[in-house]
Amino acid sequence: MKRVAVISGPNLNLLGTREVDVYGDLTLEDVEAQVMQRAAELGVEIAFFQSNHEGAIVDRIQAAGGDDDAIVLNPGAYTHYSYAIRDAVAAVGVPCVEVHLSNITAREEFRERSVIAPVCAGQVSGFGARSYILGLDAVVAMLKGDER
Amino acid sequence: MKRVAVISGPNLNLLGTREVDVYGDLTLEDVEAQVMQRAAELGVEIAFFQSNHEGAIVDRIQAAGGDDDAIVLNPGAYTHYSYAIRDAVAAVGVPCVEVHLSNITAREEFRERSVIAPVCAGQVSGFGARSYILGLDAVVAMLKGDER
Amino acid sequence: MKRVAVISGPNLNLLGTREVDVYGDLTLEDVEAQVMQRAAELGVEIAFFQSNHEGAIVDRIQAAGGDDDAIVLNPGAYTHYSYAIRDAVAAVGVPCVEVHLSNITAREEFRERSVIAPVCAGQVSGFGARSYILGLDAVVAMLKGDER
Amino acid sequence: MKRVAVISGPNLNLLGTREVDVYGDLTLEDVEAQVMQRAAELGVEIAFFQSNHEGAIVDRIQAAGGDDDAIVLNPGAYTHYSYAIRDAVAAVGVPCVEVHLSNITAREEFRERSVIAPVCAGQVSGFGARSYILGLDAVVAMLKGDER
Amino acid sequence: MKRVAVISGPNLNLLGTREVDVYGDLTLEDVEAQVMQRAAELGVEIAFFQSNHEGAIVDRIQAAGGDDDAIVLNPGAYTHYSYAIRDAVAAVGVPCVEVHLSNITAREEFRERSVIAPVCAGQVSGFGARSYILGLDAVVAMLKGDER
Amino acid sequence: MKRVAVISGPNLNLLGTREVDVYGDLTLEDVEAQVMQRAAELGVEIAFFQSNHEGAIVDRIQAAGGDDDAIVLNPGAYTHYSYAIRDAVAAVGVPCVEVHLSNITAREEFRERSVIAPVCAGQVSGFGARSYILGLDAVVAMLKGDER
Amino acid sequence: MKRVAVISGPNLNLLGTREVDVYGDLTLEDVEAQVMQRAAELGVEIAFFQSNHEGAIVDRIQAAGGDDDAIVLNPGAYTHYSYAIRDAVAAVGVPCVEVHLSNITAREEFRERSVIAPVCAGQVSGFGARSYILGLDAVVAMLKGDER
Amino acid sequence: MKRVAVISGPNLNLLGTREVDVYGDLTLEDVEAQVMQRAAELGVEIAFFQSNHEGAIVDRIQAAGGDDDAIVLNPGAYTHYSYAIRDAVAAVGVPCVEVHLSNITAREEFRERSVIAPVCAGQVSGFGARSYILGLDAVVAMLKGDER
Amino acid sequence: MKRVAVISGPNLNLLGTREVDVYGDLTLEDVEAQVMQRAAELGVEIAFFQSNHEGAIVDRIQAAGGDDDAIVLNPGAYTHYSYAIRDAVAAVGVPCVEVHLSNITAREEFRERSVIAPVCAGQVSGFGARSYILGLDAVVAMLKGDER
Amino acid sequence: MKRVAVISGPNLNLLGTREVDVYGDLTLEDVEAQVMQRAAELGVEIAFFQSNHEGAIVDRIQAAGGDDDAIVLNPGAYTHYSYAIRDAVAAVGVPCVEVHLSNITAREEFRERSVIAPVCAGQVSGFGARSYILGLDAVVAMLKGDER
Amino acid sequence: MKRVAVISGPNLNLLGTREVDVYGDLTLEDVEAQVMQRAAELGVEIAFFQSNHEGAIVDRIQAAGGDDDAIVLNPGAYTHYSYAIRDAVAAVGVPCVEVHLSNITAREEFRERSVIAPVCAGQVSGFGARSYILGLDAVVAMLKGDER
Amino acid sequence: MKRVAVISGPNLNLLGTREVDVYGDLTLEDVEAQVMQRAAELGVEIAFFQSNHEGAIVDRIQAAGGDDDAIVLNPGAYTHYSYAIRDAVAAVGVPCVEVHLSNITAREEFRERSVIAPVCAGQVSGFGARSYILGLDAVVAMLKGDER
Repeated sequence: MKRVAVISGPNLNLLGTREVDVYGDLTLEDVEAQVMQRAAELGVEIAFFQSNHEGAIVDRIQAAGGDDDAIVLNPGAYTHYSYAIRDAVAAVGVPCVEVHLSNITAREEFRERSVIAPVCAGQVSGFGARSYILGLDAVVAMLKGDER
Repeated sequence: MKRVAVISGPNLNLLGTREVDVYGDLTLEDVEAQVMQRAAELGVEIAFFQSNHEGAIVDRIQAAGGDDDAIVLNPGAYTHYSYAIRDAVAAVGVPCVEVHLSNITAREEFRERSVIAPVCAGQVSGFGARSYILGLDAVVAMLKGDER
Repeated sequence: MKRVAVISGPNLNLLGTREVDVYGDLTLEDVEAQVMQRAAELGVEIAFFQSNHEGAIVDRIQAAGGDDDAIVLNPGAYTHYSYAIRDAVAAVGVPCVEVHLSNITAREEFRERSVIAPVCAGQVSGFGARSYILGLDAVVAMLKGDER
Repeated sequence: MKRVAVISGPNLNLLGTREVDVYGDLTLEDVEAQVMQRAAELGVEIAFFQSNHEGAIVDRIQAAGGDDDAIVLNPGAYTHYSYAIRDAVAAVGVPCVEVHLSNITAREEFRERSVIAPVCAGQVSGFGARSYILGLDAVVAMLKGDER
Repeated sequence: MKRVAVISGPNLNLLGTREVDVYGDLTLEDVEAQVMQRAAELGVEIAFFQSNHEGAIVDRIQAAGGDDDAIVLNPGAYTHYSYAIRDAVAAVGVPCVEVHLSNITAREEFRERSVIAPVCAGQVSGFGARSYILGLDAVVAMLKGDER
Repeated sequence: MKRVAVISGPNLNLLGTREVDVYGDLTLEDVEAQVMQRAAELGVEIAFFQSNHEGAIVDRIQAAGGDDDAIVLNPGAYTHYSYAIRDAVAAVGVPCVEVHLSNITAREEFRERSVIAPVCAGQVSGFGARSYILGLDAVVAMLKGDER
Repeated sequence: MKRVAVISGPNLNLLGTREVDVYGDLTLEDVEAQVMQRAAELGVEIAFFQSNHEGAIVDRIQAAGGDDDAIVLNPGAYTHYSYAIRDAVAAVGVPCVEVHLSNITAREEFRERSVIAPVCAGQVSGFGARSYILGLDAVVAMLKGDER
Repeated sequence: MKRVAVISGPNLNLLGTREVDVYGDLTLEDVEAQVMQRAAELGVEIAFFQSNHEGAIVDRIQAAGGDDDAIVLNPGAYTHYSYAIRDAVAAVGVPCVEVHLSNITAREEFRERSVIAPVCAGQVSGFGARSYILGLDAVVAMLKGDER
Repeated sequence: MKRVAVISGPNLNLLGTREVDVYGDLTLEDVEAQVMQRAAELGVEIAFFQSNHEGAIVDRIQAAGGDDDAIVLNPGAYTHYSYAIRDAVAAVGVPCVEVHLSNITAREEFRERSVIAPVCAGQVSGFGARSYILGLDAVVAMLKGDER
Repeated sequence: MKRVAVISGPNLNLLGTREVDVYGDLTLEDVEAQVMQRAAELGVEIAFFQSNHEGAIVDRIQAAGGDDDAIVLNPGAYTHYSYAIRDAVAAVGVPCVEVHLSNITAREEFRERSVIAPVCAGQVSGFGARSYILGLDAVVAMLKGDER
Repeated sequence: MKRVAVISGPNLNLLGTREVDVYGDLTLEDVEAQVMQRAAELGVEIAFFQSNHEGAIVDRIQAAGGDDDAIVLNPGAYTHYSYAIRDAVAAVGVPCVEVHLSNITAREEFRERSVIAPVCAGQVSGFGARSYILGLDAVVAMLKGDER
Repeated sequence: MKRVAVISGPNLNLLGTREVDVYGDLTLEDVEAQVMQRAAELGVEIAFFQSNHEGAIVDRIQAAGGDDDAIVLNPGAYTHYSYAIRDAVAAVGVPCVEVHLSNITAREEFRERSVIAPVCAGQVSGFGARSYILGLDAVVAMLKGDER
């Protein structure tokens, strides 16, 4: 059975309890429950990870090189400046999809650009919790060598 | 039954017959067939449209204001400069998802930025034909008021 | 009797039916009716034209070279990138006034700059439908060689 | 009877006596006479003011907060850098129209951008003395709540 | 017999009748006559096309993929922003030479850069009608596999 | 007894009567009363000055060189472009603290940068009238050679 | 009794022992002792925290959401690039004041801009240890709803 | 006898009493005495003017249009942003030389660029008081039609 | 008989022996032989010159002012920064065509811009050795006053 | 005996096992073995450290202030944005040499600039594992006060 | 007797024979004759040098280190990019004045900035041949320790 | 026996006699003596070359293509703009190491970027004369195929 690491970056642990108007009222646990349900349908195992520490995220992505078949990654604010995370993704050679809850092109200018996306397979943004699920769908399809 | 307009921009009619190494060997017809199949599963109707003409795409998006419940839009090269298409999307008030076959952040610098995405609900890029299907999933979930 | 072409660009056909808070609730027909009334007072003939197609606007401006004595032009979103429309205005040698319903300097940054204005006689912006009428006043005064 | 302050910035007192090829041969007095004539037609009172001093223009705009119903403002060179005048316009809460004799988009690059226009109702430029009259027309129509 | 598409963009239909001091007094017909004469000498067939519509130019370039052996392209003002035309040229895989009547590096700053040239074989600019003929010479030499 | 000049720039005379939502409803007189009260506690004399004129502010800062022991300066909009005020502060050699009522980093982009702050001892912003009082505290502590 | 978290970022633990000419010879312990003394006067409790780890600072700010009534934050070098800390401050909804020992506008260009300040209430910089005390004064006044 | 206006901008009245290491210890009076002596040798009359007020400098330059044959102008800090002074110089049509005591290219980056110099005949900078004298020599030579 | 100077800049002497995949395997001698053959057909004399020295190229272009009727110039890497060569071309007043072997718009970003082209009659790039021949054709046609 | 800290940043622990074509097939252990061998020749002790955590690297550099005589630092991706590491290097006052395995000027644009190098003694890049050894040679020579 | 090197850069040997409308009709010999005459009045010896070669100018400036007491330098087009000449001026430690015939701030944008001026004592521009004489006056006054 | 060309650019011939505080008091001859000593240890032959002429350096690098096995290159000020030297290095195909005496990232901003480094194997900077020796070590190790 394939395993997908679902990694969430800084401040995503506050999801659903703060800034509800921007990010919705689902907690990270709710999002993960939805992801688990979809994973069951897709027949894959999930390993969740959240950290506010850039280095811990780098460590976890490196570990994925040995333990996981794919990564769904929401880098949070690190999206916009963490070349260390970028290099980790590039180094491990595991397919990775970048996801964002909000539409990052429609907010502050600094959020428009991702320094990590260029080394990912693709990007899904703007659909709230569903961004994670669509990202999982995408990466599992890649693992299965589905339709293209 | 809900109807979703699936609109493809310039040069996408050449899909699968040219630059196969970049865009894959599926033709636009193949992509549309996959979309149709997924639409059947989702229980929605699809209206396809492709044009190389910016004005024709603006016309079609405007028409969606009356005829369609949502839009899946691959603006092709217009992504990067068509404020006219942006304004059309903003004006019609129909939920719109921007999709791209390739990971636009990983190509020429001018492709990194979308002038249309800020007025869309979200963006899916990098998964080939599957970007259309994930975009359809996202927009249909929005129509159904699903999970979020 | 002098004739003035009044040309409106992309999405202006939606005027009054969409984004009423931004553009007001007058339709393009309402605006044109007001322009007609003012034209009657000024003793000039009006030829209206609206298109979402950049090329069609270029064609129409070229035609003005033969048929019209002046142009009132609201290029809509093309204001910000259509060097083709700019070149058409420069080529026909007919006095042209650029008009905008909204104050384009007070909106998104990309709307601040017009690539067409430098080849027009002048610019009127921010007064809603009245921008068209003031633009007509200005261009007719020019035709009459009025005060200056 | 409504009163409109017509405020002219630096070097406009030299109008008509210098750089006649750029600004025409009407003096500021000639322009003001045309404005007076139009004011009579419109049934409004006019209060003229010209100064080369940024601070004096700020003072005068502030005074408009108490004494005038609207402002027609030609900030001259201050257009391009006086955030002090911008703040004064924003503070007094009186409708203000920015006018320019020449087409500021067709001259030196630094003249293309107005730091004041974003807090005005609108802008008229390029029609010589007539820019003042069109600006007056616009602002009076606003005061009358005319067509829009 | 080889066939070369000679495609001219927006406002080139006005050639010779307007802005004669900039572009000379040859009409587009005159230019095409010269091209025909040179084509006869070179033993190639020519298919002319002119349009003010970006989409129509994209359509025509795509058609060249099936019907023509090479393209001589003067994109007019689209040179500076039409990534749609760029993508069309890149997609059809037919050798293309970009030509300009005027020296585009010696005019307004926005004309200095071509977004299309990077996907062409080469560029000829500054020689009036002769730019077309030199572009034809170049592309025919390529077809013949001449001297490198 | 030490004397501190408290200098306020353009439009601060309107404080409390306009844009109450942005700047609060304290008038400049209220602010000055609070400053006086704090000055009494600190045992320093205060000399207030407000002007909309850049040159008058330069004059006043120069005068501080002879008459005052320190300056609390709110340059208003001049903050962002007055190199003349900057040079005056640098020239007089009297310790100067820049204060702002609002958080200038959280408003329009042009307000983010102060051209005067680099020649001041420090900066306090965002606390309304209290910014003046904190600025006074800071500058008085400097005069007293307090804790570092 | 209210509690204020006083958080210091990278390299501030070296204070007073290194680069004495830039930052003075007070150690972080000395600064904290001064803050404690002022807190006693103000009747508030203080919770100190220092870390060189961006993630640890994010964790601590998040914790403030539950445990503290306000934050005084010196982000050190993270001031200039940590969008993760910015997002943490924005998320916890506790009033936060950014403080700096040195005048950050008077040093290297990269230090001029804070990415965190726009989501703080205000900023105090340039007064050495006193910046912390003034920041505490400001934030406590906010908690008390003092004068403004 | 020809008359030359020698105009000095903001903070030059402090010359010789402050920042002696940067500007030397000559006062403005000393500089003017040297200029007078040179004027006597050259057989021209001098009219001195100094102000910290941008508007007053504009007024004085305008007055030169009637009273003076040439201008030697040290705009001080206004050099770098006063388009109002620039326009005054351009308007009066009297030959003007810009002078600076210090080498403005060797100081802060914002001092490198003069917005006024482009409308002057020439510029002399870096020679202290002697910059005024060389500027006077230059402008008098121009008046005499000397060796071009 | 007319004489055309054919001037090649730095590193073009290595042509054909190095980086064959980029520049082809023709040596500079081969290119010159082709140029000679074409010159014979055209009835013009050729004077070849190659140097790695910017100053020597300036000297040679100046000499062309006396000895040659036209110049075909491949400035090599100097294309992108030699304002000295630009000024030489502008000074001599001899028609000059800039040529490049490769398509300079399709390589490193710094190669996209020519500082010399604005003072040339035109530019030919991308056709290998044939760029020289087309440049010669163009310049000879100019000398002959051919078909404009 | 002198001790040199050899500190490696994020993802360098993956050396030799991933992206072998870019970084070679030596592992970090291999590199360290080479460094040890060279250290023995030079008569210095080595303390190795690697971390993916920016804060941990800051901690380690601070510790070098007490324990080590010099630092050889490969900051990995932190090179390009970690002002925290820069400040740590500046604070500890121990000579530091920045080393890179690859030639950072020949890769993505963001890798061209180091924010840390300006506070180091020097930089060695592009020689794979040998960059470490050359960096060690350099720093040991500095410690010995060798030749210069 | 003091000796001053008067060094002229590329294309200045063409002075007076080309582009007479821009640079006047004096030849470099005429300029040098005027300089000689002024040198005689000032009691200094002159050593002229002109070259189109950047390296030769560097050599000559270096030689001034041994042979000359001061330099008057017109770097021509090298003004705008020759850091080699800048470094030579900085290295020789001989007072140097940069001169320009034309007002370099009033021409193409690239001419506005001098990379050499920051290491010169001062700059004189815009007065034709007289710029050399004023530059000589300035540098000789420096040698004599005159007034300042 | 392998031969390494050691090439020094403009103003390096002045080493040790000027600006001793920046570059140290070793002359170029001293540096070369140290290099010779190290070359003897390494068993390689050295060919020194120094020139202030960009073209001469290009010539010398080209000659290395035939005569030398490697290059150690200190391009001096040409580092920052000589694309001609860059192209020469790229063309000759001989391994080249760029060296700098000073830490170029810690000086003026224009010195931070090398246009030549991207085509070299690597770069060593900041170690004075030792930079040459470390560069030699690096390039000789490359020739020997040492420990990569």
